[in-house]
Amino acid sequence: MEKKKILFDPYPRSVELLFCQEDLQRLSSLFELIIWEDGKMPPDKLEKTLPEVFAIVGQTDLPVERLKKARHLKAIINVEGNFLQNIDYSYCLNRGIYVLNAGVAFSEAVAEMALGFAISLARNIPYTDRKFREKEERYGRLSNRGCFLLKGAKTGIIGFGNIGRALVKLLTPFRMEISVYDPWLPDNFIREHGCQPVSLETLLKTSKIIFVLAGATTENRHMLGRKELNWIKEDSLFILTSRASLVDFEVLINKLANEKFKAALDVFPEEPLPKESKLRELDNVILSSHRAGGIEEAYKLMGEMIADDLELILKNLPPVRLQRANLETVTKMSSRPIG
Amino acid sequence: MEKKKILFDPYPRSVELLFCQEDLQRLSSLFELIIWEDGKMPPDKLEKTLPEVFAIVGQTDLPVERLKKARHLKAIINVEGNFLQNIDYSYCLNRGIYVLNAGVAFSEAVAEMALGFAISLARNIPYTDRKFREKEERYGRLSNRGCFLLKGAKTGIIGFGNIGRALVKLLTPFRMEISVYDPWLPDNFIREHGCQPVSLETLLKTSKIIFVLAGATTENRHMLGRKELNWIKEDSLFILTSRASLVDFEVLINKLANEKFKAALDVFPEEPLPKESKLRELDNVILSSHRAGGIEEAYKLMGEMIADDLELILKNLPPVRLQRANLETVTKMSSRPIG
Amino acid sequence: MEKKKILFDPYPRSVELLFCQEDLQRLSSLFELIIWEDGKMPPDKLEKTLPEVFAIVGQTDLPVERLKKARHLKAIINVEGNFLQNIDYSYCLNRGIYVLNAGVAFSEAVAEMALGFAISLARNIPYTDRKFREKEERYGRLSNRGCFLLKGAKTGIIGFGNIGRALVKLLTPFRMEISVYDPWLPDNFIREHGCQPVSLETLLKTSKIIFVLAGATTENRHMLGRKELNWIKEDSLFILTSRASLVDFEVLINKLANEKFKAALDVFPEEPLPKESKLRELDNVILSSHRAGGIEEAYKLMGEMIADDLELILKNLPPVRLQRANLETVTKMSSRPIG
Amino acid sequence: MEKKKILFDPYPRSVELLFCQEDLQRLSSLFELIIWEDGKMPPDKLEKTLPEVFAIVGQTDLPVERLKKARHLKAIINVEGNFLQNIDYSYCLNRGIYVLNAGVAFSEAVAEMALGFAISLARNIPYTDRKFREKEERYGRLSNRGCFLLKGAKTGIIGFGNIGRALVKLLTPFRMEISVYDPWLPDNFIREHGCQPVSLETLLKTSKIIFVLAGATTENRHMLGRKELNWIKEDSLFILTSRASLVDFEVLINKLANEKFKAALDVFPEEPLPKESKLRELDNVILSSHRAGGIEEAYKLMGEMIADDLELILKNLPPVRLQRANLETVTKMSSRPIG
Repeated sequence: MEKKKILFDPYPRSVELLFCQEDLQRLSSLFELIIWEDGKMPPDKLEKTLPEVFAIVGQTDLPVERLKKARHLKAIINVEGNFLQNIDYSYCLNRGIYVLNAGVAFSEAVAEMALGFAISLARNIPYTDRKFREKEERYGRLSNRGCFLLKGAKTGIIGFGNIGRALVKLLTPFRMEISVYDPWLPDNFIREHGCQPVSLETLLKTSKIIFVLAGATTENRHMLGRKELNWIKEDSLFILTSRASLVDFEVLINKLANEKFKAALDVFPEEPLPKESKLRELDNVILSSHRAGGIEEAYKLMGEMIADDLELILKNLPPVRLQRANLETVTKMSSRPIG
Repeated sequence: MEKKKILFDPYPRSVELLFCQEDLQRLSSLFELIIWEDGKMPPDKLEKTLPEVFAIVGQTDLPVERLKKARHLKAIINVEGNFLQNIDYSYCLNRGIYVLNAGVAFSEAVAEMALGFAISLARNIPYTDRKFREKEERYGRLSNRGCFLLKGAKTGIIGFGNIGRALVKLLTPFRMEISVYDPWLPDNFIREHGCQPVSLETLLKTSKIIFVLAGATTENRHMLGRKELNWIKEDSLFILTSRASLVDFEVLINKLANEKFKAALDVFPEEPLPKESKLRELDNVILSSHRAGGIEEAYKLMGEMIADDLELILKNLPPVRLQRANLETVTKMSSRPIG
Repeated sequence: MEKKKILFDPYPRSVELLFCQEDLQRLSSLFELIIWEDGKMPPDKLEKTLPEVFAIVGQTDLPVERLKKARHLKAIINVEGNFLQNIDYSYCLNRGIYVLNAGVAFSEAVAEMALGFAISLARNIPYTDRKFREKEERYGRLSNRGCFLLKGAKTGIIGFGNIGRALVKLLTPFRMEISVYDPWLPDNFIREHGCQPVSLETLLKTSKIIFVLAGATTENRHMLGRKELNWIKEDSLFILTSRASLVDFEVLINKLANEKFKAALDVFPEEPLPKESKLRELDNVILSSHRAGGIEEAYKLMGEMIADDLELILKNLPPVRLQRANLETVTKMSSRPIG
Repeated sequence: MEKKKILFDPYPRSVELLFCQEDLQRLSSLFELIIWEDGKMPPDKLEKTLPEVFAIVGQTDLPVERLKKARHLKAIINVEGNFLQNIDYSYCLNRGIYVLNAGVAFSEAVAEMALGFAISLARNIPYTDRKFREKEERYGRLSNRGCFLLKGAKTGIIGFGNIGRALVKLLTPFRMEISVYDPWLPDNFIREHGCQPVSLETLLKTSKIIFVLAGATTENRHMLGRKELNWIKEDSLFILTSRASLVDFEVLINKLANEKFKAALDVFPEEPLPKESKLRELDNVILSSHRAGGIEEAYKLMGEMIADDLELILKNLPPVRLQRANLETVTKMSSRPIG
């Protein structure tokens, strides 16, 4: 029997980045792979390819006209990690075309990084290391002013998707009291994961450690504005690994410059962060260059998950590893394509 | 009935450092407290106090002549954190005098710090933060070369005392394969904690992350010398939070300068670390100023444990929170008093 | 604004069984509830009701003609616990109508029962209790022949859905080696849950404890037939809590009568089990009357989950608590309606 | 060098019961083994053996006169599982002779059994099985009246030694609220294990599941008398696996006969339980013949622990696996020797 065809149009990713040899061979044995890595596949080539493909891996623009041509299409897999407004989701979901997101593969990498940020801030790890390089380190107890144990610390998580749940697993041995704010989830769901559902206000006012993990949507721009950032307790830790758009950075920078709390920031409204940004000078801040998720293992896990789910779909079984698009939420996502 | 007396001679610690108000009041209600905080209690005063004390909290020198005078002594509690050669242990242990160490209160603080070091090294957290301050950070995947997940990483622990066991609890969600080298413990004991007992050679040759947690003894000086440090795999993480004497630092610095592996170091053969030490310049090293354990919460936990155990002993029950001296091992400990 | 309408046609369940007061009030405040509890809603009434309903809770027959009338239908929720062949699933799923199953609410109840069966068999709990009543009990070690610890036992799980995953959580502290056979899931998915994917043959040949948790499908009738049951090791435990159709009971009874292994059985090909069944006399068997899931708390959890998801759907958010139908698998389910 | 000698006088146990081949060979390679299994070693033989032994494994009577003769004695290891009043403990402990108890090897076996009892009672497992044999079983929900999930149930543990701590580990995934009553332990110790310290009264009045795990002492006979048993909530589960002497059985039987609560009983004031005991007829009781700990694996674990600790002591290291006698508590233990 003829193999079904998969179009790889993964820009700005690449097949080599996403797949280990073993998974790529597995896919090759099951499918005919059409790989386009010279930027995005140009429209003319795409038009020719669409009618015969079983699945598309990448962020290919797929308005309804194109989708209509893809008569055998069963799955579209986003490998950026954020659903974009590049597909007619409604058309797909009402015709049994899976729209999947491989971004779930980043969850554990981001969760480990977030925990690393929390301990690093709570214990002044980068700060102390820097003082050594300035030959000004202090020893023992003197260097531990304000340091505290994660164990038992009151913790708040804003946005309880895959990353939040991966983080909660890592936090289990620390026996924290964990509060969660996520307006898309029922209270009972949050409780079922061992956390307390709370309002944003309660979370910010009571947490010693705050993790901001929510994705960017059309609804949550600057959800952490002046009022909300004022709610944060003195000496708390503010850890941002998701999207800069959630936070009014002007206010945030001002708060940090006034040493109201500490922060670890992996994303910025403008990247690269402007050279003259005041953030670069603050001792109560850890800066990180949009790198919490994108490690080698996470990319290869994407490939593994893609191969697993494509194999399932080929066997007429539902995919189980990648994240499925939900029509209600996918149209609210507001991340822009990677530049 | 008259209250029994406790001598607090905690130099270089202090009663205020060790006890929260609540625990101090609890002790005051149960005992008469004799507190000496002006350095160590001078011999003449000590001689007068010894005959009436029920317990001594501190690193008071207690050779046999003094112990003989302490006719009502039931417990001696070290608050430095390391058993010293300041007591005739044999005399005490054969007369039902408990010799206890409050250092166990540091275990969780050190374990959290060790985990923080591991993530910080695996993900280049302090390095990247430093690059921001030099305005030379790189973004995204480019900045993640060599970074890896703790999840599933092969890990080795050298010295499996209270800190090692506290660390293993924190590592549980990471589903690592954990090897342990500890010549004082049976293999089955290590297996019972979910780890694999291995030789030092196997541990160093196979682990991606190496935690050195063993206390200093008369037997383990430079147990990590040239031969052993050569066994460490390229790109491994070497995390030292216990005692500098275990490691041949000259060799270690040379290895690190040649980028053979990465390291986080909380202790040094000479403290403060000499200003001109090459370590201060290495990008693959995180430096920390002997501060993994000594945070506020750990000191107050010491006091809580001391109060709990003194209360038990007063009720003629065995202590359960502090670590008891074992004659076989206590005489092998070689930590020097804090300067 | 007018409230949307929900039809409750839950036969053979009832609203009172499924909902605690609090959840029912919550639903009443959000929706207009149309409740029919006099058997199944008759066709004439149903025809009138369909055009205005937002959701249907129950096992109402919904062929395409009826679905076409239900112009505002957004969700159908099965409260039996098994998807039945009573709905045109394809029609629903291609029109954004959620088809959900509240059976997931039984998972923890079944998982606890399965663990209870395992310990009861491994330790002869019901057998010994029975001997007391016959005044023939033996004491101490003599009574423990063949008894063993769950800790470290090799365990196999057949069918790794919600129940299997709930069970794996309960088994975590026992440090078992757990194998899983589930042809609908990728190996990596099973590994991700800390288990080993294996063939059915390997599972049966190597496991000391075997849990049969797979739902009945058109493909798995008698998947445990003569050949497979012969693979089971002597003295193993065979625990069946899902569906009798998976097992060739004639062979199974013969094996048990010959004391090849032990079993706990919650389901039977014919229920009630015939009075004259040989199973009723066997000492190596624990018999249970199709009751692993249906406890009060599980039914009320169903109601909670239904209320949570209906509230989400009303807010134009995707449901997160109930199990969604997948077109590929839902049409293969072969459970018959509850009699 | 000559091997040191170990006397095995394990009556009523035997060497074969306690040691697997591997551990016995290990001991043989390290020590000269003097084995006496014909009842207890007679006094004349014992007198000759004592002067040369390094360790004694068994419940040999060791008053001070005999101990004085055992000039090389370093360790005495009880293999019954309870410390008896057969040794001059004070003499031993003040001369650096370890007195150890292998009973800790039973902990996990008892903990698993206790959990098995809890699920069996909560879900009526033995009762339903019995009804099948009487051809009177009821199906489905009707059979589940009063059944409940362990998940989230309020649980109380009386006596928090090795068994209690082993049980708490097994209960972790059930997310219970666990209260502990143990007058020998500080509140903070109990909290450190994730449980709430409470009074006996609070525990009995608030717990849905009550585990009685405390050993028999001179102080706790009938600690659960009429007043205390009256405190137990209706429909609670009462699980007794430690010692019958803790409970006023006359009152207990009366309460159970009146269906005040349910119970699983592994020990009785008189064993065998009198044939005419009313307990044998009660449907709300599970009876077990003093068999929670004594399974094959537990005995062999005893041997493993004994071999491990003797090897450590031979190497001049402290034992770590067996339980050490504490002078304060060992003299309060009141278990009688096994008949």
